[in-house]
Amino acid sequence: MSGADALRRDTAFDGWGPAELKPELGSGAMALLRERIGETTPARATELGSVRLPDGAEIPAAVIAAAGGEGAISTSAEDRIRHAAGNGYPDLITLRGGTLESAPDAVVAPPSTDAVAATIVACAEAGIAVVPFGGGTSVVGGVAPDRGSFERLIALDLANLRRVDVDPVSQLARLGPGLRGPEAEAALNERGFTLGHFPQSYRYATIGGYAATRSAGQASSGYGRFDALVTGVELAAPAGIMRTLRTPHTAAGPALRELVLGSEGTLGVITDVEVRIRAVPAVRHYEAWFAEGFESGIGAVRALAQSGELPDVIRLSDREETEVSMAMAGLGGLKRAGLERYLKLRRRAEGCILIVGWEGEREAADRRRELSRRVLRACGAVPIGASAGRSWDRGRYEGPHLRDALIDAGVFVETLETAHSYAEITGLYEAVRSALKQATNEGVVMCHVSHAYRDGASLYFTFLTAARSGAEIQQWQEIKAAACEAIVAAGGTITHHHAVGRDHAPYMGAEVGELGLEVIAAAKERLDPAGIMNPGKLLP
Amino acid sequence: MSGADALRRDTAFDGWGPAELKPELGSGAMALLRERIGETTPARATELGSVRLPDGAEIPAAVIAAAGGEGAISTSAEDRIRHAAGNGYPDLITLRGGTLESAPDAVVAPPSTDAVAATIVACAEAGIAVVPFGGGTSVVGGVAPDRGSFERLIALDLANLRRVDVDPVSQLARLGPGLRGPEAEAALNERGFTLGHFPQSYRYATIGGYAATRSAGQASSGYGRFDALVTGVELAAPAGIMRTLRTPHTAAGPALRELVLGSEGTLGVITDVEVRIRAVPAVRHYEAWFAEGFESGIGAVRALAQSGELPDVIRLSDREETEVSMAMAGLGGLKRAGLERYLKLRRRAEGCILIVGWEGEREAADRRRELSRRVLRACGAVPIGASAGRSWDRGRYEGPHLRDALIDAGVFVETLETAHSYAEITGLYEAVRSALKQATNEGVVMCHVSHAYRDGASLYFTFLTAARSGAEIQQWQEIKAAACEAIVAAGGTITHHHAVGRDHAPYMGAEVGELGLEVIAAAKERLDPAGIMNPGKLLP
Repeated sequence: MSGADALRRDTAFDGWGPAELKPELGSGAMALLRERIGETTPARATELGSVRLPDGAEIPAAVIAAAGGEGAISTSAEDRIRHAAGNGYPDLITLRGGTLESAPDAVVAPPSTDAVAATIVACAEAGIAVVPFGGGTSVVGGVAPDRGSFERLIALDLANLRRVDVDPVSQLARLGPGLRGPEAEAALNERGFTLGHFPQSYRYATIGGYAATRSAGQASSGYGRFDALVTGVELAAPAGIMRTLRTPHTAAGPALRELVLGSEGTLGVITDVEVRIRAVPAVRHYEAWFAEGFESGIGAVRALAQSGELPDVIRLSDREETEVSMAMAGLGGLKRAGLERYLKLRRRAEGCILIVGWEGEREAADRRRELSRRVLRACGAVPIGASAGRSWDRGRYEGPHLRDALIDAGVFVETLETAHSYAEITGLYEAVRSALKQATNEGVVMCHVSHAYRDGASLYFTFLTAARSGAEIQQWQEIKAAACEAIVAAGGTITHHHAVGRDHAPYMGAEVGELGLEVIAAAKERLDPAGIMNPGKLLP
Repeated sequence: MSGADALRRDTAFDGWGPAELKPELGSGAMALLRERIGETTPARATELGSVRLPDGAEIPAAVIAAAGGEGAISTSAEDRIRHAAGNGYPDLITLRGGTLESAPDAVVAPPSTDAVAATIVACAEAGIAVVPFGGGTSVVGGVAPDRGSFERLIALDLANLRRVDVDPVSQLARLGPGLRGPEAEAALNERGFTLGHFPQSYRYATIGGYAATRSAGQASSGYGRFDALVTGVELAAPAGIMRTLRTPHTAAGPALRELVLGSEGTLGVITDVEVRIRAVPAVRHYEAWFAEGFESGIGAVRALAQSGELPDVIRLSDREETEVSMAMAGLGGLKRAGLERYLKLRRRAEGCILIVGWEGEREAADRRRELSRRVLRACGAVPIGASAGRSWDRGRYEGPHLRDALIDAGVFVETLETAHSYAEITGLYEAVRSALKQATNEGVVMCHVSHAYRDGASLYFTFLTAARSGAEIQQWQEIKAAACEAIVAAGGTITHHHAVGRDHAPYMGAEVGELGLEVIAAAKERLDPAGIMNPGKLLP
């Protein structure tokens, strides 16, 4: 395979994953939705072949040559459509609407790092905007084909950069940016190692995307967020190649690695990532508990984090999410828990489900679990067994698929996430929940803590309401703005792991301050003087 | 206390700590030295009152006013001398020589963050170079009064910025940059917390210095290097104040916090640091083991790190350091170990001492110790008991004091440190050791691993030889250059925790590449357009 042959076409162009994996919303689920958000109008969708998009401008010969020749370029409607959007709600609505105002003029898949670097340089010289593209899983408009001041734009797909080099002595791996999570994981597993990074986007997101957005996996409490795993990066920028020294730790000045991580394609393309890996865990065990309430549950999370006995996975749902999950699961899943447990739960009628998990060598994992259980009991939580934990594990990547079914049914469904210190997190939760309840006209607003630290935790909100048929994007803008303003007012970060993209760029001033914006801009000016790299993202 | 009253004068101006804490080198130690490095000529020293320095230029009224008035300024010879150098070997030799070619024109100690910020702005307008000064403990020329292109220079001492604000719920503290380690620790201990950061410079180095240099404590394996503890920073730059959002984690773009950490005073002055703290450990236990050899010992360190059972303190000395330590201790310390143990050691005649330590709640610490011991035994190490470990703990801050006594005796003594992955660390060790042996004419060259990571470790070299009386600085330059070139050739980092300062700036090109230097310079241009901040440091 080479060039454009490597481009992936195995997901629904207007959703997540292959169409056949989209679940059916059963009558029970539909009834639950109707009860909560009222009637909905099934959403329109358009066949791939019927999507209209602007004609593609011609790509100069110099760019084609730099990319490795015609074989590295695709101008097919399908590839241009597939690279015209990510997976955010506005992206999907736009694709379903069947008319794209903007799409890349071509999709370029250079066969090597050198070709990637040469392509970027050629685009800078020709004044062509470049959108780096990995899995296209951005939910914040990170791959939107925003031309800025340029007439032409290409999507630069990293699909050919998929090397895996393992140093088993140091437990390090050098990974190509175009590797999907499962591809990297399979290659590492062959050697007895794991990356241990499993975000919800795991099936399709890429290593380069993880690095460019500082993603966080669902096992992040134990394994580290992606940025904590990276020991070295290579960036191909219009101004040249910048490599950080590969070292376990250094005090040699400001950390340029940390400038590249989270740069979201605006400084250049990440062409190599060196990461810490570890031995595949011998055991993995998940179980579910019930905390007395959300605040009490957060207290348990805090106690675990500050005792040093933090499980590898910890997820605490608020009251509404617990209620909805149980109602949905009651239509199938939690039956295994048994009637006794269900009755016990009724004594925790306002309780919150807390999933915890441990991985590693059996003895160490068992000891950690024992110490964690003590803390959980001391914080008033009760165990409800391993089956709910296993249920969670099985369903952990299903969310995005489910969203497609909900959108079909005419449901507005979106997520956002933030984080704060333990002293401030309840205030942040209440402010955002309240803003979302209002903006969704008392829709479903669910929240969970998914990542815990010694000093604070993240909050992940999922919110649903009846879609405003024909004005979905405007509805989304209103709801999104209300939530972001609440986050900023409460001092939370505008993003814990979804990144900034296009959608959060307006809030970066509040996040980093004017001088902070100027410093990022100064770095960008040096690395990308023509400003071709991913216009309209990160900086307002 | 306000303004210049806060300036500290409690250490030897030309050495480490108060003169009365300088140890006597007993006849046994002198004999050992003579045997290893030959005869030495006792070094000259000069009384503080006899040190000659250039007259100080006048400081403009605008700067004085910005700093809070005359009370914030000192132009005394003593204060100017105390702020004319750090604690590197060339610094101490120069001070002992009694003639300073360069010294700050004044020492300014603004009483508040606002005054610090105003002082910096006023200096930028007046074209006065600013050297931020905390504990003055830099061993790499980080506080050298290098005027660059400016006629005047002040040392900006942070001694008045010593606030401690504790958030016990989130286990966070906001600390002023002028706090010495023990001051911060005492304030935190009162609330039941600890910072857990104990570099060898602990007695005098400051919080601001830790942040500006990415320092590493001796318990860093467990508690994290200083940069891993920081959740937020505030930087007062000539261009304005830049604050990073205080958050447990964010994906909002490049990490500006990581640009400020390690910036070594070249971008501005760090005026506030938010750090993670933790409960004071209930127990602390250190013990000593003997590994079969250095490479075998590194294997044990690696096994511990990669099993997840890394002790909080781990220090593995090489053969020469073990031999010298035992010879020195045999004159007093290890007697407690007992005759049986000493005999057992003879069966490990080529062995290497490995100090390990655990802190925390008793049960968790015991559990970790048990699992670590298994790993150590499996790697061929034998335990030699807790007393050697306690000896190490008691003596952990004595090194710099001892150095002063050695310099008195006419010994050239210097340290340097680097790091590499486990796959490459032996090659790096051998290359640097060999270069140092040659450059010191077969002097004493000792090394230890002091910080371990999953993927690699640090190497800390201490090397002694007879000082070249009258040409000490030239001798130092030759030896330093030989070692740095060996480090660069072997792919190690030029500094694991001492920072870049003036001495390592020539090697930054090799460390971060030309484009990397340009990016740091671009950030500096935006924050410090006039280039007044700590000229001659970090960037070549």
